[in-house]
Amino acid sequence: MTAELAITFADVAAAAHRLRGVAHRTPARTSRTVDERTGASVHFKCENFQRMGAFKFRGAYNALARFTPEQRRAGVIAFSSGNHAQAIALSARLLGMPSVIVMPKDAPAPKLAATRGYQHGMAGSEVVLYDRYTEDREAIGRRIAAERGMTLIPPYDHADVMAGQGTAALELIEDVGPLDALLVCVGGGGLISGCAVAAHGRSPGVAVWGVEPEAGNDVQQSLARGEIVHIDTPQTIADGAQTQHSGQLTFPVIRQLVKGVLTVSDVQLVSTMRFFAERMKMVVEPTGCLAAAALLEGAIDLRGQRVGVILSGGNVDLAVYARLLQG
Amino acid sequence: MTAELAITFADVAAAAHRLRGVAHRTPARTSRTVDERTGASVHFKCENFQRMGAFKFRGAYNALARFTPEQRRAGVIAFSSGNHAQAIALSARLLGMPSVIVMPKDAPAPKLAATRGYQHGMAGSEVVLYDRYTEDREAIGRRIAAERGMTLIPPYDHADVMAGQGTAALELIEDVGPLDALLVCVGGGGLISGCAVAAHGRSPGVAVWGVEPEAGNDVQQSLARGEIVHIDTPQTIADGAQTQHSGQLTFPVIRQLVKGVLTVSDVQLVSTMRFFAERMKMVVEPTGCLAAAALLEGAIDLRGQRVGVILSGGNVDLAVYARLLQG
Repeated sequence: MTAELAITFADVAAAAHRLRGVAHRTPARTSRTVDERTGASVHFKCENFQRMGAFKFRGAYNALARFTPEQRRAGVIAFSSGNHAQAIALSARLLGMPSVIVMPKDAPAPKLAATRGYQHGMAGSEVVLYDRYTEDREAIGRRIAAERGMTLIPPYDHADVMAGQGTAALELIEDVGPLDALLVCVGGGGLISGCAVAAHGRSPGVAVWGVEPEAGNDVQQSLARGEIVHIDTPQTIADGAQTQHSGQLTFPVIRQLVKGVLTVSDVQLVSTMRFFAERMKMVVEPTGCLAAAALLEGAIDLRGQRVGVILSGGNVDLAVYARLLQG
Repeated sequence: MTAELAITFADVAAAAHRLRGVAHRTPARTSRTVDERTGASVHFKCENFQRMGAFKFRGAYNALARFTPEQRRAGVIAFSSGNHAQAIALSARLLGMPSVIVMPKDAPAPKLAATRGYQHGMAGSEVVLYDRYTEDREAIGRRIAAERGMTLIPPYDHADVMAGQGTAALELIEDVGPLDALLVCVGGGGLISGCAVAAHGRSPGVAVWGVEPEAGNDVQQSLARGEIVHIDTPQTIADGAQTQHSGQLTFPVIRQLVKGVLTVSDVQLVSTMRFFAERMKMVVEPTGCLAAAALLEGAIDLRGQRVGVILSGGNVDLAVYARLLQG
């Protein structure tokens, strides 16, 4: 008995078609050092090389590309201080529609600047700032959406977003062949739900594992309890996984298609980030290191297996990155 | 009237054949930001993703693969504190021959460790340390070579090394198509001479430009004078280009096939290194940034052209790298 899930393999395949020539087909990379250390044959999917620096572009563009002409005219609204903000702003620009991004006043300056950069010259586009201690961003968003007729695209709990994110795993399997295991970071579950659907469709029998920060293991708890668990905003350097709960659409997919969720500590994330800089010459943001850290730091033993690992992004403030590299 | 050069296009093609399945065919990457900023269509050849982290593996392996059975039995000797040391040690390991690397006592610990790592378990292999203030490394090398019958492979002034390095440009042009211009960093001239031969063979009419650190422009001076100029060891963060002069074999190739040599400052190198980390999510060592810096920092205007840029390596001590990123 299989419950109806929000997306099917066909949705991921359709998203791949929409993204062709727009998203980068990011490279899959290997490392002899990683293979020796883990005893596995490991393929990293480099979404840190994706447009705007993270997989989020896939889901955002796929969702906006499906807007009706009326939706396009009015445009899109999103709340985010992270990669989703830039993904929506860039996708809206490419599709010629206005975007409003609701961001906290104290969001990092480079993220504000990048988002505004994508909105530059697009009529009706703006960043709306709010005070996260005194104002309710959802109320602000709902008000603007209603006033301007804009469509809200949430960061993960949306079928088109999930299907778009799944194209990362689809490309990986198309490029390197079937996998025994696939490791994916988990925030709200958009990436892992899309990737799980894609992987089970293209590589039957694959074991999909989620990886969360130790401090924010809400999905691990949710799987144990069989229902969505809410937690306080976790303290972790993996800022893309500081979610308090998974989604109404993502959790059922995770429950059905994900074998389990592993956790790693911030210390293990930093060690993995250093490994990527030193040995693979890549900048991977803390959240992007989650899946790799589980394997490299021994949270799971996949000896003898063909393993895919999604590196979800590379957007980290340069000063923070430099400090973390220094250890 | 064309003087006989040390290598021909056929030598580069033969090297490519030897390196197939041994060296990585490194990716060519593009960046919309770079194209917008320069007005050109730019293709980066990512030798920072090469085995042992730099193009040097190509030349070293090509040279050692051509040893006679007797030469292989006795093994190879090299002097280097940099990427050439690791390239020779790794190539010797892969070909099953002993290697002796003569390195200064005060060489960075990670480089010593990496070189010894490649020599581990290979009978007759060792790092020989010398005091760079009181001892003559060439005398030490000659003595060991004579005693043990080993073949010395210099870092750049050797036809097989030059031909091997040229495979980087050959692959780039095969992968992205003909180029109007190719920018290559210049130390002793091994990389640029091989690349110039490859590029003129595969992309007739291409303009090949060399790029040196401002503080160490011996090849720029040599081209102006029409003969090899010797300079003091330059003070620059581009440690792979701290050469005092080009070679007897490399300079004639440069003179005939390279259009000119540009220079960039250390400040421009750091700015370029930061650009690669922030926007392209790649670790590129200072020397590896030379060619890109000339384009990104405006030392040359290649608007409207199809441009290849060799990123020569990514081996930089993590603490140094972090300090440079912090600016």
